[in-house]
Amino acid sequence: MFQSNSQTLNDFNESKIIENIQQWLGNTSPECPLGIGDDCAVVPPEPSAQSLISTDALVLGKHFDHSITAEQAGQKLVLRNLCDIAAMGGYPKYATLSILSGSNLSIDWLHQFYKGIKATADTHDLKIIGGDLCQLQDDQFQAVMTIIGTATKPVLRHTASIKDSIYVTGQLGGSILEKHYNFQPRLSEGQWLADNSFASAMVDVTDGIAKELNFLTDRFASIQIDLKSIPIAESAHSLADKNSENPLKKAFCDGEDYELLFTLKHSIESTQFEADWKQRFPQTPLTKIGTVIEKNPLANIIDSETQTPIDDFKSFDHFNCE
Amino acid sequence: MFQSNSQTLNDFNESKIIENIQQWLGNTSPECPLGIGDDCAVVPPEPSAQSLISTDALVLGKHFDHSITAEQAGQKLVLRNLCDIAAMGGYPKYATLSILSGSNLSIDWLHQFYKGIKATADTHDLKIIGGDLCQLQDDQFQAVMTIIGTATKPVLRHTASIKDSIYVTGQLGGSILEKHYNFQPRLSEGQWLADNSFASAMVDVTDGIAKELNFLTDRFASIQIDLKSIPIAESAHSLADKNSENPLKKAFCDGEDYELLFTLKHSIESTQFEADWKQRFPQTPLTKIGTVIEKNPLANIIDSETQTPIDDFKSFDHFNCE
Repeated sequence: MFQSNSQTLNDFNESKIIENIQQWLGNTSPECPLGIGDDCAVVPPEPSAQSLISTDALVLGKHFDHSITAEQAGQKLVLRNLCDIAAMGGYPKYATLSILSGSNLSIDWLHQFYKGIKATADTHDLKIIGGDLCQLQDDQFQAVMTIIGTATKPVLRHTASIKDSIYVTGQLGGSILEKHYNFQPRLSEGQWLADNSFASAMVDVTDGIAKELNFLTDRFASIQIDLKSIPIAESAHSLADKNSENPLKKAFCDGEDYELLFTLKHSIESTQFEADWKQRFPQTPLTKIGTVIEKNPLANIIDSETQTPIDDFKSFDHFNCE
Repeated sequence: MFQSNSQTLNDFNESKIIENIQQWLGNTSPECPLGIGDDCAVVPPEPSAQSLISTDALVLGKHFDHSITAEQAGQKLVLRNLCDIAAMGGYPKYATLSILSGSNLSIDWLHQFYKGIKATADTHDLKIIGGDLCQLQDDQFQAVMTIIGTATKPVLRHTASIKDSIYVTGQLGGSILEKHYNFQPRLSEGQWLADNSFASAMVDVTDGIAKELNFLTDRFASIQIDLKSIPIAESAHSLADKNSENPLKKAFCDGEDYELLFTLKHSIESTQFEADWKQRFPQTPLTKIGTVIEKNPLANIIDSETQTPIDDFKSFDHFNCE
């Protein structure tokens, strides 16, 4: 990645690097003024939809290391940002990309990084419309993407009602084995939930549901979870076995699942909803894991079987996630 | 800035830091979902205007050092971004702010940084609607802002016509003495130029006009400059004296002037235009420095007096800016 024996950023001036980036992106970066090349990108008005805006970074040594390729790193940055759009039920449209890097970064590495950016952006109809290039000290690399999407009926956090069912997509935990850089942003699923007004609240699972469950409701409601229903990923099981940990704890606390956690309005018949889901998204597992209940004075999250606060569920100690 | 004997980021968890940031920003960050707190910020549609999007970073050791305060650093980041909106003739609306920092950053420093962000944002009616927080290795700090504005008639680059006059605001060169962190983004001036369709092309002067002049025209035109007219800043003179440099070279090549460089449509009477400017913006110097001319096969930028390419103007060597 950082080299002294091949071409690096140091061998080019800024204009030349930007020219390269434009070439690498091809039509993933539209013609100026919508694309790269002016003081700002100029985006036409979208009169009938709200805009969604989010920003996420990719830091060498934190979000990726040398065990994944440059292309996979680029892919991961775009996917991370797409997940934020998915969690609102939105449609991705545009993104800016800032590269902050030591000037000893290999040009080949950067090219491959943009290859990952381009492929993932193209798959999801995302256009790269601007960015910035900043020099850091040698051996450092960070990229920051700001993504812009649209939604006519975005699904928010903290808006679930009492009796709504709680669902999660996919399987949870153990993402460090591979899923953290190779996952499906649940865009179509989120769009379907939002456009049909099925979901009453929705969040992206990035830090583990132990934290994210708290974002579904306001302070007048609690959450009841059926621990036996939690969909634990294979990789969470194998990591837990290896380290003598509780796999349930991994499913609750591991980061970077990039799944959707949402509540289904209780006015919607759940059997029919689940059947429709299966037909529409046969590849995307969906699991009902609990229900929104009236405020429990003991805790925000309650075990449905024992009716005890999960925070105090010492026998499992699932939630000691720090 | 980085401390071991006072409270640092390390003493707080992420939620607590975000809570602090929300408190520091107060109503500069609107209520969620427009403000901080969901997977994305939700921005209402703006049916009649185009959106302007740009992104700029502030890197410790590159864009600022310990000689300026945290508040001045925060101010500089917002001002840098506002200048990109000004250069399109736009109105600033929203911004996201990503903080990438070593966890030994002093909380007090970050608080003061946000104080600078807030004060500058408030002055220019800019709302901070989202962001991201990322841990770096100790002693590092970077902030990335993405700004969103609106314009009904944005002024682009490369769109000047032959015979258009070339103007620049303020004085050029020597910004390193103070102006690089303490300057006026020329927002009202840019808006007036855009809304009245006076300007045919416009750019922000960040890297020096020697580079930026090339952005005014397309490849079918050249630029003729009256070197005697260039408004050289006092600080460029004093730095040039000190280092036995040519002050004109500093005016052409120094970075971070953050002034507007634009072309006035030749259909507009320039004496009247200049009189109107003086009445409307008495505090903002305006200087006519040249004219767009038919393509000169010798060079893109020509000295009006000698009719020689300025790139080859060896006696001055102004343009050896690297």
